[in-house]
Amino acid sequence: MSGNTTSATVLGLGAMGSALAGALLGTGRPVTVWNRSADKTKPLVARGAVAAESAAEAVAASELVLACLLDDASVREVLGTASLAGKTVVNLTNGTPRQARELAEWVSEQGGKFLDGGIMAVPPMIGQPGAFVFYSGPKDLFDTHRAAFDAFGGSNYVGEDPGLAALHDLALLSGMYGQFIGILQAYALIRSEGLSAVEFAPLLSGWLTAMGAFAEHAAKEIDSGDYTQGVVSNLGMQAAAFDNLPAAAADQGVSSELLAPLHQLLLRRAADGHGAENLTSVIELLKK
Amino acid sequence: MSGNTTSATVLGLGAMGSALAGALLGTGRPVTVWNRSADKTKPLVARGAVAAESAAEAVAASELVLACLLDDASVREVLGTASLAGKTVVNLTNGTPRQARELAEWVSEQGGKFLDGGIMAVPPMIGQPGAFVFYSGPKDLFDTHRAAFDAFGGSNYVGEDPGLAALHDLALLSGMYGQFIGILQAYALIRSEGLSAVEFAPLLSGWLTAMGAFAEHAAKEIDSGDYTQGVVSNLGMQAAAFDNLPAAAADQGVSSELLAPLHQLLLRRAADGHGAENLTSVIELLKK
Ligand SMILES: NC(=O)c1ccc[n+]([C@@H]2O[C@H](COP(=O)([O-])OP(=O)(O)OC[C@H]3O[C@@H](n4cnc5c(N)ncnc54)[C@H](OP(=O)(O)O)[C@@H]3O)[C@@H](O)[C@H]2O)c1
Ligand SMILES: NC(=O)c1ccc[n+]([C@@H]2O[C@H](COP(=O)([O-])OP(=O)(O)OC[C@H]3O[C@@H](n4cnc5c(N)ncnc54)[C@H](OP(=O)(O)O)[C@@H]3O)[C@@H](O)[C@H]2O)c1
Repeated sequence: MSGNTTSATVLGLGAMGSALAGALLGTGRPVTVWNRSADKTKPLVARGAVAAESAAEAVAASELVLACLLDDASVREVLGTASLAGKTVVNLTNGTPRQARELAEWVSEQGGKFLDGGIMAVPPMIGQPGAFVFYSGPKDLFDTHRAAFDAFGGSNYVGEDPGLAALHDLALLSGMYGQFIGILQAYALIRSEGLSAVEFAPLLSGWLTAMGAFAEHAAKEIDSGDYTQGVVSNLGMQAAAFDNLPAAAADQGVSSELLAPLHQLLLRRAADGHGAENLTSVIELLKK
Repeated sequence: MSGNTTSATVLGLGAMGSALAGALLGTGRPVTVWNRSADKTKPLVARGAVAAESAAEAVAASELVLACLLDDASVREVLGTASLAGKTVVNLTNGTPRQARELAEWVSEQGGKFLDGGIMAVPPMIGQPGAFVFYSGPKDLFDTHRAAFDAFGGSNYVGEDPGLAALHDLALLSGMYGQFIGILQAYALIRSEGLSAVEFAPLLSGWLTAMGAFAEHAAKEIDSGDYTQGVVSNLGMQAAAFDNLPAAAADQGVSSELLAPLHQLLLRRAADGHGAENLTSVIELLKK
């Protein structure tokens, strides 16, 4: 078989698993699918996939087995019914680095090989520009199956430690949720005066793009541990000025709970004698 | 006098007040300055400014008076020593909408006119591309002095209500601090494995730019109050998957306190029966 036509099995046909199976079918390779609720196999069978009767049968059908289920527990449950010897299991279910590391060990104990993946896309984006997936585990395994992976979008290999794909995935999700916090808080204030969020949106987007330069500056400071260079708006001043945010929110009938933990960290870090440093310095308080 | 050479007074020569006075000097107009600690007037006097002996004398010297002090209390204290009749007071001190509204009334009671401003820049950016200032209060007053304001950067008039400049300012600051939360949390996770934040930075920046599209989508939903259209990643699913963030952070020895309030709002909103909606819907819980 050429790399292009290596067969593949997909376990789990929720929104994401169905998108992955569809992308694999698009490459022309044989695809076996299985889902707990059998009816979800139908649209894929109509496109040429083979539906297996059980997860064990689905795993037996291909050397390359992709799992995209609800969570780590469901992955354990489903894989536990199959024989994994000689299989390459690629887990594309969202989880933690620890779960990925433990799953890698468990698969290996059963004679299987393991890669973990973190999908950075929603299902409609799979195979479209902008979608990408982090992979971690043995590099040779990644290289062997890369042609299949590339059907989903960009394939970003981040290291041998199987926990690293989840780590990168969750780091980006954390970044995204922080950005969401800021956007929601900004609109809540704007709407408190009955102003239009749509009219405010370009201003907010432009501002976030400009302030996004913080990501680059902060990275250098964080790697070096030196937060004292080029300070133009020091942590102590920001800790003090931050008081205006909950005060204004309260006056406007808006909760400021989403920003409260950052406020507390700024105050603590200033009280600890780091008021003259850049704001980035609060990251030290996130280390446990 | 032509609009270009209208004289101006600046009260407060901290980092920001000094930058503002410097920008006004750059337009060639007569500039009077005052600062509580008199030595800070020196660099500006060297550039052609006139140093007043007292705040009262400084206010008397020009019709246009800009205040850039520490906070609302210091603005009240300093302006309280001067005669404001016939003056246009522009307050560029950071504060809340309520403080701006009350200050506008107080200045008006003394026969003065009032504009409030919110500076969206750090001092070195004043007069440079990207810097801008929100203004609110009487539109004719803004138009009269716009030539002076334009020395600072873009001049963005947001309405007659004097509280609106502070509202816009604090909304953008909220957006920025949320973004900072996400960036700090992302790097804390990456650093927990000893990986390089600098190497991760381009990935994070690219991701935040892509996910920034949320600002536009969310604005439409928020204005309409309808969070049920085009749902590809529903709130309930995100509330459940969110558990991986504190779990992974704990495993990695990283605090997840910065994201905890959003997690709680997602869980509450899902429990309230809004799990099938878009995430934007949590903004309803920010209304008090
Ligand atoms: N959707 C996204 O935007 C997105 C983005 C990135 C990553 N992900 C990740 O991709 C994974 C799947 O997401 P999804 O959107 O496809 O979710 P989904 O539509 O809710 O599908 C969940 C899948 O898991 C199966 N399942 C759940 N519990 C099971 C069990 N105990 N035994 C066997 N099968 C079980 C379901 O089977 P039934 O059909 O029988 O219920 C279904 O196939 C998740 O880990 C998610 O975090 C999703
Ligand atoms: N720096 C920024 O990045 C930035 C950005 C946007 C907005 N702002 C806002 O601009 C304003 C000034 O900031 P800054 O950076 O210039 O701060 P700063 O360097 O700390 O200067 C504070 C100024 O306030 C004066 N002051 C404080 N208390 C006073 C009082 N009771 N009576 C008289 N004067 C008093 C100080 O006088 P002394 O010299 O005598 O102490 C000094 O001139 C603040 O509201 C800040 O939030 C700053």
